[in-house]
Amino acid sequence: MTELSALAPEDLQHLRTDLMQRYTAICDRKLSLDITRGKPSPEQLDLSNGLLEMVSSQDFHSAEGVDCRNYGGLDGLPEARTLFAAYMDVAPEEIIIGGNSSLNLMYDTFLRAMQHGVGGDAPPWSRQPAIKFICPSPGYDRHFAICEQLGIEMLPVAMTADGPDMDAVESLAAQDASVKGIWCVPIYSNPTGAVYSDDTVDRLARMTTRAADFRIFWDNAYAVHYFGERPARVRSILGACKAAGNPDRPFLFGSTSKITFPGAGLAMMAGSTRNMSWVRDHLFFQTIGPDKLNQLRHVRFFSDLAGIHAHMEKHAAIVRPRFQAVQEILTDELAGKGIASWTRPEGGYFVSFDAPEGCARAIVKMAAEAGVKLTPAGSTYPLKKDPRDNNIRVAPTFASVGDVRTAVEVLAICTQIVAIDQLPV
Amino acid sequence: MTELSALAPEDLQHLRTDLMQRYTAICDRKLSLDITRGKPSPEQLDLSNGLLEMVSSQDFHSAEGVDCRNYGGLDGLPEARTLFAAYMDVAPEEIIIGGNSSLNLMYDTFLRAMQHGVGGDAPPWSRQPAIKFICPSPGYDRHFAICEQLGIEMLPVAMTADGPDMDAVESLAAQDASVKGIWCVPIYSNPTGAVYSDDTVDRLARMTTRAADFRIFWDNAYAVHYFGERPARVRSILGACKAAGNPDRPFLFGSTSKITFPGAGLAMMAGSTRNMSWVRDHLFFQTIGPDKLNQLRHVRFFSDLAGIHAHMEKHAAIVRPRFQAVQEILTDELAGKGIASWTRPEGGYFVSFDAPEGCARAIVKMAAEAGVKLTPAGSTYPLKKDPRDNNIRVAPTFASVGDVRTAVEVLAICTQIVAIDQLPV
Repeated sequence: MTELSALAPEDLQHLRTDLMQRYTAICDRKLSLDITRGKPSPEQLDLSNGLLEMVSSQDFHSAEGVDCRNYGGLDGLPEARTLFAAYMDVAPEEIIIGGNSSLNLMYDTFLRAMQHGVGGDAPPWSRQPAIKFICPSPGYDRHFAICEQLGIEMLPVAMTADGPDMDAVESLAAQDASVKGIWCVPIYSNPTGAVYSDDTVDRLARMTTRAADFRIFWDNAYAVHYFGERPARVRSILGACKAAGNPDRPFLFGSTSKITFPGAGLAMMAGSTRNMSWVRDHLFFQTIGPDKLNQLRHVRFFSDLAGIHAHMEKHAAIVRPRFQAVQEILTDELAGKGIASWTRPEGGYFVSFDAPEGCARAIVKMAAEAGVKLTPAGSTYPLKKDPRDNNIRVAPTFASVGDVRTAVEVLAICTQIVAIDQLPV
Repeated sequence: MTELSALAPEDLQHLRTDLMQRYTAICDRKLSLDITRGKPSPEQLDLSNGLLEMVSSQDFHSAEGVDCRNYGGLDGLPEARTLFAAYMDVAPEEIIIGGNSSLNLMYDTFLRAMQHGVGGDAPPWSRQPAIKFICPSPGYDRHFAICEQLGIEMLPVAMTADGPDMDAVESLAAQDASVKGIWCVPIYSNPTGAVYSDDTVDRLARMTTRAADFRIFWDNAYAVHYFGERPARVRSILGACKAAGNPDRPFLFGSTSKITFPGAGLAMMAGSTRNMSWVRDHLFFQTIGPDKLNQLRHVRFFSDLAGIHAHMEKHAAIVRPRFQAVQEILTDELAGKGIASWTRPEGGYFVSFDAPEGCARAIVKMAAEAGVKLTPAGSTYPLKKDPRDNNIRVAPTFASVGDVRTAVEVLAICTQIVAIDQLPV
């Protein structure tokens, strides 16, 4: 394939005409496709329907005989803590099992930090003149939205295949006491699919931070969500932080939202026993306890970590063809043309697509006019401002394989047209 | 019965000897009874076991066809909002259905107020030199704990049979802009069982508040939890506030914690559409949505408000004998002795017991030594400081009728002994 910039003007014009014909034909089909959100398909959710049969009117006691219908159990059912401690690679006393939303646990942690500080002598963030957060970008829009709502200044750093650009992270953390933390999605990062290398984990754990109350928000949303050859393993951030003498640095988050049911799964928070005491002390004021019946359902459904892995193999079988379709179409349409690059994740929910600079908004708009909703351009950057206006997040799990093919074809067509129109004449 | 203070010294000594014999005999039984918390009994929870069969692997779509397993529905399932709007006496657009804990909704509302203010131009509470809250006392320890944790100064006002002493409330609200709100449990108040009169509701709605952002936290925890002749009705606080031109004044809270399952019920928040927009705006940053499957279970289990009322009749049949036992024992042991008074609630979860001044701590300690756990003295007052040290909350629902009788007998015996020892010799 020839790079578009090397084509003769008449060849380029010819190509554009062909692309516009395809585009018009697709518009005529009045499509209504949506690949905007990392949402499991109904077929994936069916894998967990057994969950709905795990607790009956005859059988609602925990292994230790707790009546899971009643009050109590602030930090979660003991057997749920054991199971998900294995999942999160921490000890049972280092985890708390909450409700259905890890975003909620993260948000609440931020509000606690704003109101009370993050434990010990650390002053409340809201009492300080400025709070800044390191935001590897592209990243997860909901993380950035929390910072934006709370008036926390976001400091974007580039993502690499091994995680955030650690030179930049170390430099920001070391020089400014108002830099209080960093957002991380360590495995199959949203949206690039990057997996943090051991070196990245060690440097995060070890680095000098000017703020004594610096915190890593470790959102392990896709810990076991692989569809490649084998599951990625990321070094334990809690273990690395302990080894580096910074045991309280990481707050770990996880959920079964993309393992069982997004709306009715379990969310969890983990970290040092000191951090977990701090969370419990605050939880006491907030609630009497989480939904233990749903925790019991999950424990019975999976039994152990091997049960979770076996379950994820079934998810992989469903999502794999969708991700393969994305790669096939993008390769067929765009490889060698010198206008786009994209990631080839081995897990997670997204492909990160880079168009030519200054083109993402135009491409998303043009695709929308053809009935294909893409994640709004800019969403993957703090304040929704992609400085190069070139990143588009592709979320292929919810749509059928056929719809994914069509949607990505539209993305590829629009990318080429917008790119051609941008070439110097 | 003769008042103890009128007894001759030798008669008093005789009575004390008898009481100590009974006390010692009870101690010898090595009891372990607990009437500390408003917790439904397993028998009550069994009434809602049908809930566990309402959603199956074949049947998890809402009436409108929403797949309740997946993400979405920030403010709750439409049919749940309709059902519980009727329950909370508001319109469906005036309610949001959340997770399993109304305490959580209240706490989050406080944190939002601290961080952002309560909507419109109101400044964040945390930016103001002082925030004060009116706390009708005795009241609910968890309400007071939230204020204590957030450094909010609590202003106790007396409870009457018709609700808080409104002269005191009006005076506090009118004179100080740092008085930002009041805690209310309007029906079968915790712990006195008082039901707010229409006049109380109207005065709360109408009163002049120096703070433009004054809020009534209306914790309608026992809205339908009657066991007397017929359900109490309390005038709509939202209706009254609208009529008075203060539609944004009340935040209403409720839950099914004591209707279905304390650990796995539904919590709700209601108020003006402007207030609900404000909540939704904040919820967006906190979560993708609540557990819709559990909302679907509740809607199917009850169908409508009549279904909830029919269900509560069954609860009443279970709790009524326990409350009757409390009244019988207290009357038998203490009536006419001039040392104690107590409430005779027609609903809710508590009886409020007043011992002689300065005796509550000693009574609770003495009962504990006989194996009967009572709610710690002071719990019903802000900062756990009962200025008269005379109030004890009795929570008879969880124990069996026989155990309630024994526990209250111990309370009555200890009250008499401590009272006698306090009489001038």
